[in-house]
Amino acid sequence: MPETENATHVFDAAVDLTTIDAGRYTGSTHPAYANMVGPFGGITAATLLNAVRLHPEVLGQPLSLTVNFAAPIEYGDFEVTAHPVRTNRSSQHWTIELTQDGVVTTTATAVFGKRRETWSSTELGRPTAPPAHDVDVRPMSDFVKWVGNYEMRFVDGGIPGPDAGPHPDSTSTLWVRDEPARPLDFTSLTALCDVFYPRAFLRRGHALPAGTVTLTIYFHADAAELAAQSDLPVLATARSNRFGQNYFDQTAHLWGVDDTLLATSHQLVYFKA
Amino acid sequence: MPETENATHVFDAAVDLTTIDAGRYTGSTHPAYANMVGPFGGITAATLLNAVRLHPEVLGQPLSLTVNFAAPIEYGDFEVTAHPVRTNRSSQHWTIELTQDGVVTTTATAVFGKRRETWSSTELGRPTAPPAHDVDVRPMSDFVKWVGNYEMRFVDGGIPGPDAGPHPDSTSTLWVRDEPARPLDFTSLTALCDVFYPRAFLRRGHALPAGTVTLTIYFHADAAELAAQSDLPVLATARSNRFGQNYFDQTAHLWGVDDTLLATSHQLVYFKA
Repeated sequence: MPETENATHVFDAAVDLTTIDAGRYTGSTHPAYANMVGPFGGITAATLLNAVRLHPEVLGQPLSLTVNFAAPIEYGDFEVTAHPVRTNRSSQHWTIELTQDGVVTTTATAVFGKRRETWSSTELGRPTAPPAHDVDVRPMSDFVKWVGNYEMRFVDGGIPGPDAGPHPDSTSTLWVRDEPARPLDFTSLTALCDVFYPRAFLRRGHALPAGTVTLTIYFHADAAELAAQSDLPVLATARSNRFGQNYFDQTAHLWGVDDTLLATSHQLVYFKA
Repeated sequence: MPETENATHVFDAAVDLTTIDAGRYTGSTHPAYANMVGPFGGITAATLLNAVRLHPEVLGQPLSLTVNFAAPIEYGDFEVTAHPVRTNRSSQHWTIELTQDGVVTTTATAVFGKRRETWSSTELGRPTAPPAHDVDVRPMSDFVKWVGNYEMRFVDGGIPGPDAGPHPDSTSTLWVRDEPARPLDFTSLTALCDVFYPRAFLRRGHALPAGTVTLTIYFHADAAELAAQSDLPVLATARSNRFGQNYFDQTAHLWGVDDTLLATSHQLVYFKA
């Protein structure tokens, strides 16, 4: 198929699922989102969110998602099940699983719901950063395939180069969007929440074995705020609180236009060092 | 039974489960941990962690726990199931459910595992606070029963009094321990992660309808650090990032002796205002 304006974006191809029956789907890993071992965790999380969004009984918008990376996902076909465990008047609780040949590789839970106007306040401050167009796009190495699907402009805490030493803090802040540009939606926002390279690389000054064990996302943005964001870069920042005995945490904040806090995200990461 | 030094602590009574068979238990809500509607969320989370810890196949120590409060829990009996979905060499993934009369009220996932010495660093700073014994114990109202099981000494952001107005930020910091004192373990640490009153009360200056929808805990402490903590007060601090359209998030840090970051915890809370 020739590439035209109407061609499917690689992200949509990667999270695509085929419905077998309500809440049961098949899908395949996409080579463009390959990581060192198995697919990029963000694309897996996005695929599991997509399984809920495709369900005929889905209620409202995503509020939270937790994904547990229980076992490596092999490149190839998989099955996803999404089950609405409980539907309340304004919220809905989901359990989700990704299996390969009947073996569970990934578990997840999600909360969806309707939102109404209430008192509101964004208490957290946005990090200071020059406008995206004033920050260089870092040409990414081919070390892992999936990074080629993101335009990353590091404001702070870029990937350590060959001569990097230990770094005193674990904060990275970057402008990031899908490459090619694609209007933001809940599914692509989910993947963006996992776009940060492991914080231990930055602290130690080099790559080391690391992988996300569990990831949680709180969606603060509603559909109107995502529409206002369109395909503009998101200001994404992440840091860790404690590293030790094979695990560290990571907290991330994703900011959109008009200082909108789109999502906050947390993960626990296995590492060896 | 007369109260003696060897009497069961009320916390242990509240999280107690009776094994039906491996991974299937019965329990009952404990009146001492009653909240406004149903039990204190922290005691429910602790009970679900306990279900994993009692399982004959459990591997290592708790690393993470996510609990989704799908429906109110009625006072009375319940059933808990804990299933080891995947056991790896050094980590184990669990799905957990609490049901009443066959209806799921609460879902959860947990990761347990073995930890080994690695490079380590606590990057987050501990909040400054006077020693616990220099901070007054706030006599808690009888508004909700469960607070009587905790000794709380607020350093910052105490519960708004009748004349409180809006507050510019949502941070509360307090010294807290079980009452009566009880040596800290993973189960009681789990409950402590949910010990904060809703952040919207502080910002708005008064109580309002609010309830946790989903709670995630990352356990940074190992068993040796918990043993060192014993029954000393924990310095607990919590704040929110964004409030709006019926939901706000909360991030909490729990600090032990020797500036040990015991746990970080995050939740999404429903509110009306």
